[in-house]
Amino acid sequence: MHKSESGSSLGPGGLDLTQTFFKPVLNAAPPSPTKRHIKISVIGTGNVGMAIAQTILTQDLTDELVLVDAKADKLRGEMLDLQHAAAFLPRTKIHASTDYSVTVGSDLCIVTAGARQIASESRLNLLQRNVSLFKAIIPPLVRYSPDSVLLIVSNPVDVLTYVAWKLSGFPSNRVIGSGTNLDSSRFRFLIADHLDVNAQDVQAYVVGEHGDSSVALWSSISIGGVPVLSFLEKQQIAYEKETLENIHKEVIDSAYEVIRLKGYTSWAIGYSVAHLVRSILRDQRKIHPVSVLAKGFYGIDGGQVFLSLPAQLGRGGVLGVTNVHLTEEEAQKLRDSAKTILDVQAELGI
Amino acid sequence: MHKSESGSSLGPGGLDLTQTFFKPVLNAAPPSPTKRHIKISVIGTGNVGMAIAQTILTQDLTDELVLVDAKADKLRGEMLDLQHAAAFLPRTKIHASTDYSVTVGSDLCIVTAGARQIASESRLNLLQRNVSLFKAIIPPLVRYSPDSVLLIVSNPVDVLTYVAWKLSGFPSNRVIGSGTNLDSSRFRFLIADHLDVNAQDVQAYVVGEHGDSSVALWSSISIGGVPVLSFLEKQQIAYEKETLENIHKEVIDSAYEVIRLKGYTSWAIGYSVAHLVRSILRDQRKIHPVSVLAKGFYGIDGGQVFLSLPAQLGRGGVLGVTNVHLTEEEAQKLRDSAKTILDVQAELGI
Amino acid sequence: MHKSESGSSLGPGGLDLTQTFFKPVLNAAPPSPTKRHIKISVIGTGNVGMAIAQTILTQDLTDELVLVDAKADKLRGEMLDLQHAAAFLPRTKIHASTDYSVTVGSDLCIVTAGARQIASESRLNLLQRNVSLFKAIIPPLVRYSPDSVLLIVSNPVDVLTYVAWKLSGFPSNRVIGSGTNLDSSRFRFLIADHLDVNAQDVQAYVVGEHGDSSVALWSSISIGGVPVLSFLEKQQIAYEKETLENIHKEVIDSAYEVIRLKGYTSWAIGYSVAHLVRSILRDQRKIHPVSVLAKGFYGIDGGQVFLSLPAQLGRGGVLGVTNVHLTEEEAQKLRDSAKTILDVQAELGI
Amino acid sequence: MHKSESGSSLGPGGLDLTQTFFKPVLNAAPPSPTKRHIKISVIGTGNVGMAIAQTILTQDLTDELVLVDAKADKLRGEMLDLQHAAAFLPRTKIHASTDYSVTVGSDLCIVTAGARQIASESRLNLLQRNVSLFKAIIPPLVRYSPDSVLLIVSNPVDVLTYVAWKLSGFPSNRVIGSGTNLDSSRFRFLIADHLDVNAQDVQAYVVGEHGDSSVALWSSISIGGVPVLSFLEKQQIAYEKETLENIHKEVIDSAYEVIRLKGYTSWAIGYSVAHLVRSILRDQRKIHPVSVLAKGFYGIDGGQVFLSLPAQLGRGGVLGVTNVHLTEEEAQKLRDSAKTILDVQAELGI
Repeated sequence: MHKSESGSSLGPGGLDLTQTFFKPVLNAAPPSPTKRHIKISVIGTGNVGMAIAQTILTQDLTDELVLVDAKADKLRGEMLDLQHAAAFLPRTKIHASTDYSVTVGSDLCIVTAGARQIASESRLNLLQRNVSLFKAIIPPLVRYSPDSVLLIVSNPVDVLTYVAWKLSGFPSNRVIGSGTNLDSSRFRFLIADHLDVNAQDVQAYVVGEHGDSSVALWSSISIGGVPVLSFLEKQQIAYEKETLENIHKEVIDSAYEVIRLKGYTSWAIGYSVAHLVRSILRDQRKIHPVSVLAKGFYGIDGGQVFLSLPAQLGRGGVLGVTNVHLTEEEAQKLRDSAKTILDVQAELGI
Repeated sequence: MHKSESGSSLGPGGLDLTQTFFKPVLNAAPPSPTKRHIKISVIGTGNVGMAIAQTILTQDLTDELVLVDAKADKLRGEMLDLQHAAAFLPRTKIHASTDYSVTVGSDLCIVTAGARQIASESRLNLLQRNVSLFKAIIPPLVRYSPDSVLLIVSNPVDVLTYVAWKLSGFPSNRVIGSGTNLDSSRFRFLIADHLDVNAQDVQAYVVGEHGDSSVALWSSISIGGVPVLSFLEKQQIAYEKETLENIHKEVIDSAYEVIRLKGYTSWAIGYSVAHLVRSILRDQRKIHPVSVLAKGFYGIDGGQVFLSLPAQLGRGGVLGVTNVHLTEEEAQKLRDSAKTILDVQAELGI
Repeated sequence: MHKSESGSSLGPGGLDLTQTFFKPVLNAAPPSPTKRHIKISVIGTGNVGMAIAQTILTQDLTDELVLVDAKADKLRGEMLDLQHAAAFLPRTKIHASTDYSVTVGSDLCIVTAGARQIASESRLNLLQRNVSLFKAIIPPLVRYSPDSVLLIVSNPVDVLTYVAWKLSGFPSNRVIGSGTNLDSSRFRFLIADHLDVNAQDVQAYVVGEHGDSSVALWSSISIGGVPVLSFLEKQQIAYEKETLENIHKEVIDSAYEVIRLKGYTSWAIGYSVAHLVRSILRDQRKIHPVSVLAKGFYGIDGGQVFLSLPAQLGRGGVLGVTNVHLTEEEAQKLRDSAKTILDVQAELGI
Repeated sequence: MHKSESGSSLGPGGLDLTQTFFKPVLNAAPPSPTKRHIKISVIGTGNVGMAIAQTILTQDLTDELVLVDAKADKLRGEMLDLQHAAAFLPRTKIHASTDYSVTVGSDLCIVTAGARQIASESRLNLLQRNVSLFKAIIPPLVRYSPDSVLLIVSNPVDVLTYVAWKLSGFPSNRVIGSGTNLDSSRFRFLIADHLDVNAQDVQAYVVGEHGDSSVALWSSISIGGVPVLSFLEKQQIAYEKETLENIHKEVIDSAYEVIRLKGYTSWAIGYSVAHLVRSILRDQRKIHPVSVLAKGFYGIDGGQVFLSLPAQLGRGGVLGVTNVHLTEEEAQKLRDSAKTILDVQAELGI
């Protein structure tokens, strides 16, 4: 971190060793300006934004981390708190400003700003307050980082990802919503917990809207590569559809429950987004259920809508959408989920 | 994580695969009960406790993490929020309860419970509220984990570490306060920032009280192994003592400033404590400035007092205290710092 | 690392700081002997053993690493070479000896000793040379670490895992062969490379004998949770069975090809075994295709035979075997693979 | 990894899912060609080159790893062996070729090619065989990666780093020799082992030639920031100069001993170089004793000579050389060490 960021005010006559402690070798030349350097900006330093920022930092995913928020005091407090850990962390430059120019040249901009979801408030109700906020956030991000990928976390995430896409003018593969990536993790946790297996061995997706109309893809759940439903059928084990729906319902209720209990969610969304960051910036080409432009998939054709589908992520953003075979019931639920989102967009006139 | 922790209520007739999905090999035997397994308990799930818990989890430092707090709702919310990240993390069992029996067999108990420090409140003022709290916390921890190491983070940390030691009846090497470990990190950050070097290459200690009477050990600062003050002297570079004192003052003010700006400190103390946890549980034998029983060191003989000295930490807790040569001025400041703490202990009649 | 291991011979009158540099705190007590500490022994320091040892060290999977080999010079050279990296690694104690007493109290013993496989030599031909070697290795390991898990890597791995089990008298869940875990990784790499996806998103198993009779489980390959064969069928995409067999053949030939090209295999088996070590010692409960006592699974009933099946691993060793539904063709191939191994065991009269 | 690297020959009519398994989102655009991507080339796939390559891979330090060697079979065997571990590693692209065009656009080129050092052969004797090799290696590396940093590991490293600098025409800050970075690690290990502290807490440098004339900087050794010699003096502890020289002698002999015992060194140099790679490519600004153009430092003025001094490394290569205050004896030894190297250069007429 550089002097300008530390708020140090040692002033003239201070301990200025920089000119004497190191000397350059003869014949040295400055580094090439094209050298690689990863920069991530996080917009919004509430509980979600800071959990994301801290997880990115701990997992050493960036060379430079920028925080932006409208509240100058809170922002500076969070920056200092992270900077004070410098001795325990790999060297990451940490900046913060209320001015978007600090984000210039970002590889990835993560937008978490938004009103906090209140217990019992539906995610869609948060919308209007956030659309106008995005009109102040997205244009400067685009101006300062025209080649970046936008990762939207603010809720309702699907509509706001659509809004960010329209405001940005970016190609659709560079605008991604965190979508049901976290719902899918909760789903995998509940299944893993039930079976006493490692959640990383559970393949299971929740797709569609990040919200009440989300769709659990029961037909494609597998454990360590073993499809669960066909296993049950072949074993002639009876299972009640209602039971499966209860697990899905528990996933949907999870966010509400955590909000009711602790007032907000933070840790799991922090890990979830850091996971997406790694796939994108390290060009991992991994598959995640995230909110993408879904028009043209699974018969979704009523309009331009973002919702979560299993997508392959890499340095270019969305590399492709997995062509999963859904059951007809699953596909219909997905189209219903799309309609739910489109209806909201229609109400808003966007 | 096991069923009992998930709050899952799938009930009878549910998706019970556990009996059919896996089968044991022939001739199998249960694992030996003596197998190694690391368990950490964090007492208090406020901002500090949760930043510690989350950093420990991200850095994969334990097999089992237990949270204890008096507020049942907040506690369950934090547990669920961490559990929902299971798919993104190595398999760590996460439990939470208001009942201390959940901590049974812990290797390390980290106490963060306490009243939050208010801006402008001196650390010592927090004391009385916290001593009585410790009378409810320490005895059950000792009962359930008689072989554990106690790591105290609550403020004022030096007095409370002494209190914990007295209440626990533990040998002194198994009771450690986080002390000036974080102050030293802030000190190293400010020096590194000033010189544009990596903070991990700066060796520098703040010792004594974690508070206004802390002592910066100017005589032993080195950068990459090069002692800074003797460097300056040999280069005949003038430096003003006042400048050095300003850097130390900035360290002392750091905590107050972050509290003023964001309302509390969390991230840096989280990383700082996780660093101590690694040294202790992985038996790293590294040297950290932490609060230890200081009687007998540097002429401190007025009574039993805990304050920070550079100590070597390992699986047994404090392995030894580094026999640093202080300047006479530094040694005197250290004894003054000890007296400050002892005066408080005297006022309290403990 | 302790003096006794370093070969240091500074002798009397040397730089003995240990008594003066650190001093104990008052009232200190020695650490409890029951404290957790992970110890791994690697038997055999050839290319495979050392690749495993180095990967375990880099990934920080143990507190203590022990090397055993009959060649004292080679052994000491490898130990010193690893120890010299101490400044770049977390503190791991590294010991080496030709005497098995150094392995006392190991959690996990990894046996890699054996004659090197020669290009074009079938894996089964290596057997007789190795059985007698195991009679010298397994009994002392069992004597010094009666609660350990044995992980056999020497080839032919399935027969030698059986031999180790018989010689050890251990319950079968504590004797595991590395089996087709690496074949499965090669299989996943070839599929991932073909589809340009992340190999970690490919679920695919090779089971049965680690050798020419191994069985590729085509019916259960999935990409990011999407079953590939049913995808192809539903898309009405023609695929030739011959093509699938070519991929499997390439997997089988991989080891032979690497041996032909560089003389031996090392890196991939190193990573593969380190992955198993993590699952076992961190109690990850993950599923791996490894060599286990297969009697009673999939109609295998001709005798006691070890071969690879997808097994859940944890601190107790094998926690269970996944009850995968194979096609009848796959099940028959598996029984044929079992017979191949049993025939060899019969020839040997064991 | 891409098809072209796998050697897969599935041919027409094969399992071609790439066109059908994923579909692009509407309105997608290709990624910007300016996106960040780290590429490292390792020249020479002997024991040293492969230990470096494998450690870089395990520590996830690059997006793309390229191997170059003159022996096509060995090269392809090593590439395949690393690729087969894909399922256990983060996604790193691994290429190999005997043709230097594969290195195009590297950020860092690590040269390990050279004749293996024979037991009892002085490092300087290896020279003539290697200079002519470098004339074939350095020009194509420079042509394909004109902005790269060259990191020379081949021995005798100081002279060969000078040779590489002259052949490259690069500014001196972009040509670095691994120098005494590993000697310093061995030095720190021996001190740490002697004192039973963590080697990472020992600051100690060996500088000068990587060879018999290297210089141990006794005056600047510190443990956890505590200077050892002044500690001893103040404690009035007698220590024999001979003892210190024995430790240094043990460091010098270490490489010879490992070579005598196992035939070559590999693991420690692998970790040592990976540590430098991290500092350079992650712009860590850490201080390492590495071989740099030393003219103008400490009275070295007899000619252009590379030898090890504590240097700050970052993305631009050498950012500066620490202005350590040596004792007059140490400075004289350093000038002697420089003269030793210059004499060799003079003999060679370079």
